[in-house]
Amino acid sequence: MKIYDSQLAPNPRRVRIFLAEKGIQVPYEQVDIVSGANRSPEFRKKNPMGTVPVLELDDGTCIAESVAICRYFEELYPEPPLMGRDARDRALVEMWQRRMELHVFLPIAQVFRNCHPFFAGRIRQVPEWGQVNREWALEALAWLDQELATRPFIAGDAYTIADITALCGIDFGRVSDIRIQPEQKNLKRWYDEVSSRPSAKA
Amino acid sequence: MKIYDSQLAPNPRRVRIFLAEKGIQVPYEQVDIVSGANRSPEFRKKNPMGTVPVLELDDGTCIAESVAICRYFEELYPEPPLMGRDARDRALVEMWQRRMELHVFLPIAQVFRNCHPFFAGRIRQVPEWGQVNREWALEALAWLDQELATRPFIAGDAYTIADITALCGIDFGRVSDIRIQPEQKNLKRWYDEVSSRPSAKA
Repeated sequence: MKIYDSQLAPNPRRVRIFLAEKGIQVPYEQVDIVSGANRSPEFRKKNPMGTVPVLELDDGTCIAESVAICRYFEELYPEPPLMGRDARDRALVEMWQRRMELHVFLPIAQVFRNCHPFFAGRIRQVPEWGQVNREWALEALAWLDQELATRPFIAGDAYTIADITALCGIDFGRVSDIRIQPEQKNLKRWYDEVSSRPSAKA
Repeated sequence: MKIYDSQLAPNPRRVRIFLAEKGIQVPYEQVDIVSGANRSPEFRKKNPMGTVPVLELDDGTCIAESVAICRYFEELYPEPPLMGRDARDRALVEMWQRRMELHVFLPIAQVFRNCHPFFAGRIRQVPEWGQVNREWALEALAWLDQELATRPFIAGDAYTIADITALCGIDFGRVSDIRIQPEQKNLKRWYDEVSSRPSAKA
């Protein structure tokens, strides 16, 4: 078993943090996404989408998509639960995880993809779309600050995959100058707490 | 328990089909998304994102996000499994479900949101982004046609939530004139099969 990884991209970090929280060790192989090794025909045999991370099992099965990889390990190693403890809880964690993905992580990624020089010439950039997403991302941080006034973590009393997605999204926002504002004290309290966990260094 | 639903939107249909496949009956309450009832302060207490569907439990808990609602019912009523049978299978189904969401359903929805008159004045439309997504959606259908040469359903030998997401996305493409092409025979074979299941009428 191994994971095709990149230290430069925010999605692989989600999996690394998830595994660090579980105390699971998996060998990582770095993929050079700057040179485009992830778009090679060879890599696309593992993941036709050409993205990292990809978990390759010993039988050759390749599991792509960060959350799918996390779910695999959650099923095999349920403790500590990072995706909920029972049916209702698991649905609520998934709801929050998806909200973090769709309203925090994805808009921040869209700003990067559509406005950053890294992607110039690699994809067809639409800077206006990047600007719309910048506004959405900033609105999402303001909303999240309000939500975090009522509970310690994104999905409730426990640290979950929703916190991991939000943390990786917000940290990735720095390259596009999307940052937590000084008045967002609940969000800052949460951010400091999840950032100080050892897993955040993964 | 009830589900806040709209017969007009593609996401609520994902949940209706999922429940029909399981043989589960839940009362539905229609939300008038044309007049914007889903954006009202009252509805936002149930789902701050202002989207349907929302599952309201008898204790008042509200679960938003289609896949989170589906997971709740999958946990309570595991048969027939629509999200996989074991850890590896569940991860692969989730991988395919997310690929259908990110590469089929989402681009098709982006074309609608950014190019269709329905959203003019409701959101800031970026038509160029709609055009980029139209190309991606058409590329995704061509890719899916190749994938379906090797197996009956999106995620393998069994019908799963990945088929539901793809079906609802492709059907929603019609309003933006995104359609299966005559030469895409594998995709057409799959489409005819999943469309003829009784659940597709849900």
